[in-house]
Amino acid sequence: MSAYKDLKIAAWNANMQLKHDGLAIQTFGNVSAFDPAAGVFAIKPSGVPYSRMRPGDMVVVDLDGRVVEGALRPSSDTKTHAVLFKNIPGIRGVAHTHSTHAVAWAQAQRAIPLFGTTHADQFPAPVPVTPLLSDSAIQGDYEEETGKLILETLAALPGPSPEMILVGGHGPFTWGSSPMQAVLNSGVLEEIARMALLTLQINPDAVPLKATLVQKHFQRKHGKNAYYGQE
Amino acid sequence: MSAYKDLKIAAWNANMQLKHDGLAIQTFGNVSAFDPAAGVFAIKPSGVPYSRMRPGDMVVVDLDGRVVEGALRPSSDTKTHAVLFKNIPGIRGVAHTHSTHAVAWAQAQRAIPLFGTTHADQFPAPVPVTPLLSDSAIQGDYEEETGKLILETLAALPGPSPEMILVGGHGPFTWGSSPMQAVLNSGVLEEIARMALLTLQINPDAVPLKATLVQKHFQRKHGKNAYYGQE
Amino acid sequence: MSAYKDLKIAAWNANMQLKHDGLAIQTFGNVSAFDPAAGVFAIKPSGVPYSRMRPGDMVVVDLDGRVVEGALRPSSDTKTHAVLFKNIPGIRGVAHTHSTHAVAWAQAQRAIPLFGTTHADQFPAPVPVTPLLSDSAIQGDYEEETGKLILETLAALPGPSPEMILVGGHGPFTWGSSPMQAVLNSGVLEEIARMALLTLQINPDAVPLKATLVQKHFQRKHGKNAYYGQE
Amino acid sequence: MSAYKDLKIAAWNANMQLKHDGLAIQTFGNVSAFDPAAGVFAIKPSGVPYSRMRPGDMVVVDLDGRVVEGALRPSSDTKTHAVLFKNIPGIRGVAHTHSTHAVAWAQAQRAIPLFGTTHADQFPAPVPVTPLLSDSAIQGDYEEETGKLILETLAALPGPSPEMILVGGHGPFTWGSSPMQAVLNSGVLEEIARMALLTLQINPDAVPLKATLVQKHFQRKHGKNAYYGQE
Repeated sequence: MSAYKDLKIAAWNANMQLKHDGLAIQTFGNVSAFDPAAGVFAIKPSGVPYSRMRPGDMVVVDLDGRVVEGALRPSSDTKTHAVLFKNIPGIRGVAHTHSTHAVAWAQAQRAIPLFGTTHADQFPAPVPVTPLLSDSAIQGDYEEETGKLILETLAALPGPSPEMILVGGHGPFTWGSSPMQAVLNSGVLEEIARMALLTLQINPDAVPLKATLVQKHFQRKHGKNAYYGQE
Repeated sequence: MSAYKDLKIAAWNANMQLKHDGLAIQTFGNVSAFDPAAGVFAIKPSGVPYSRMRPGDMVVVDLDGRVVEGALRPSSDTKTHAVLFKNIPGIRGVAHTHSTHAVAWAQAQRAIPLFGTTHADQFPAPVPVTPLLSDSAIQGDYEEETGKLILETLAALPGPSPEMILVGGHGPFTWGSSPMQAVLNSGVLEEIARMALLTLQINPDAVPLKATLVQKHFQRKHGKNAYYGQE
Repeated sequence: MSAYKDLKIAAWNANMQLKHDGLAIQTFGNVSAFDPAAGVFAIKPSGVPYSRMRPGDMVVVDLDGRVVEGALRPSSDTKTHAVLFKNIPGIRGVAHTHSTHAVAWAQAQRAIPLFGTTHADQFPAPVPVTPLLSDSAIQGDYEEETGKLILETLAALPGPSPEMILVGGHGPFTWGSSPMQAVLNSGVLEEIARMALLTLQINPDAVPLKATLVQKHFQRKHGKNAYYGQE
Repeated sequence: MSAYKDLKIAAWNANMQLKHDGLAIQTFGNVSAFDPAAGVFAIKPSGVPYSRMRPGDMVVVDLDGRVVEGALRPSSDTKTHAVLFKNIPGIRGVAHTHSTHAVAWAQAQRAIPLFGTTHADQFPAPVPVTPLLSDSAIQGDYEEETGKLILETLAALPGPSPEMILVGGHGPFTWGSSPMQAVLNSGVLEEIARMALLTLQINPDAVPLKATLVQKHFQRKHGKNAYYGQE
């Protein structure tokens, strides 16, 4: 009987939701569930199709990416997840997808402009994109370096820190208060990525949403006096 | 036993249709059902996922947006719905979505040009877009001000009044003779928004449909001698 | 007991396939099934949602569009179908959709260029688009005039006659040896309409497929020595 | 009792997956399963809809394309498959689709640029496109010539050989260590074709991914020290 049964089920549920929401095909993408007290997280095994994955296939690893429990090899992106869990306070889940429109912005190496309230409901600034890793970082501990690059890019932002980022040339990482929340953030990111491209196709001179409207929507959902949702 | 059982079921059905028709993801969007005799409407609770929503979760509010019945907090857009019910004669349902292409036109702050009969079947002029609210309106009673802005934009139109509008920088609101009709209008709006963008991508110099064809299609469905449908 | 039971079932099946294949939303589109011996066809009733339509709802009309059997009003496009059945030899089904990409080309008033073998498998020339009807034709017997316009446009084509056309500013009509074949043709048309737009987005200077390749594909499927399929 | 029962089931399974993954509509596309020991392969029958296809409908042919077992006519593309099985070492399956975005690149007669890691995970160079066949090849043994053209295009590539190619003006062919792997490769190809177009729409000056990042991703999945997947 595994001590990590609930953690594995949480990771498995969130991975299956990723698939269900159309954010990953075949074996693409991965979600992890973090238990800060135990200092471990459960993550999708590497290269296993969603259709064949069972809760018991989830791999439990520590914050250095060493396998603690599990018969399979963990996701090749495991160390990136570890860096995020170690350094972003309060998060319990990380999701990485290859969702189409978010990847397109990452490949274009462009931040996603804030054009409307759907975006502002989530985050009051463009969705950042990291620069490319240096050649030495790529040839070194690549996945850990990817995590560090995410942290550096977040640290350089002027305002609040988002729960989503684009890794340049690669694709999106998202996180949140639970593995399921990380997946929901991936879904919103894909949708605002798609809306932003369509907006520019309709009006190449589209302007970012004005600050008062951005703040109104962000604050009514995430501010001190938020009145969106049930809490 | 609730006096508003039927109203809540009508609102719930229409909200579930919104989800079923792919017009909303996660907790986005909201539909309401109005009972003019009782002076109340039932609306989706705020921030509740469609997959977990039950008829009994619908919140009944009066035309000032005060909760009359229901354990949950109503949609944050409730006051916008209230303004529309108070001021647009004969309507029984309002729908608000974040459907992708309608939002893109709203974010581009462009009215949707009338390029074909699919659009003319619905409304004989471009789908209007509101300007952005003033900063003081945004910082005031934002949702009520949004409703008023919709009314002002409708009042300024030369011809018949549509059952749909884009709120600039935000997204679409639609309404109709029933909550389900409001949802159907949201579906048509998303489709004509998508068709209009594709039309411009094929032919950037595409011209609006000529007036005789617009009138023919609008009148055969909505005119005095209409012969579309079963009534 | 209806003498037209089989005809109604054939029409209903084909209409349901239209919906199933994503070529129509809500009450959009209509398919008919023709019995040349009886000189009648069965067609979708006007404005009835696919989800509620039963075989017995199909309306049987003669070639002047007069109702022969059925409690409901036939599709408002009935006379267009009648003109096609009267004038195109050997066809047994007509389909009209508002499928997104085919409508976009119709709204752009552009024929669909022949860019590849998917298109050539179906027809060895661009998919034609009709001009707009004259104002007097629009204000006259509009649906019959639409049918005549389709025939005139077909008659002016230099080569073989297609089983599909775009009505300018409106949308596609397709036909074939059965109602189901007409629906399949609508599906192919939507797909080649989408592929053609994407081709131009990748390469605005894309050139039409060369004639030898067009003829090879068209002939291997439709020519005297065809070897595609099982007959 | 057929000696090729397992081969037919493998071919049928892979063809049904093609349909399930949205890579083919109606009767489009075909997948084959190769048995090198027996020198035969099973392939989809020509022009049969996926919805009606049974394992026993698969046609077994030898490497010259002659039918060894089966009541139906094999896919019209059978000889192209045969050429690939004869000449590409180690492959057991070939898939041909008309998937939308891959066809669009083929119709545009453009190789798919390598913009990101989703592509690099699969292949470390652009996805090649063949030139058009000469008129004499088209009018000769067309399907065999198509196979030869694919081989010539592969032979001219500087680096490793991909498991996917675009036939100019036509569409994609993919192959792999099993029929199912060939179908998975078709799915990845469609996705990177779509991502590449979207990338260019966001940033028309998007640059190919730098070589170190390409190599890192390709090698971690396919190199000597690969650590992606479970082997």
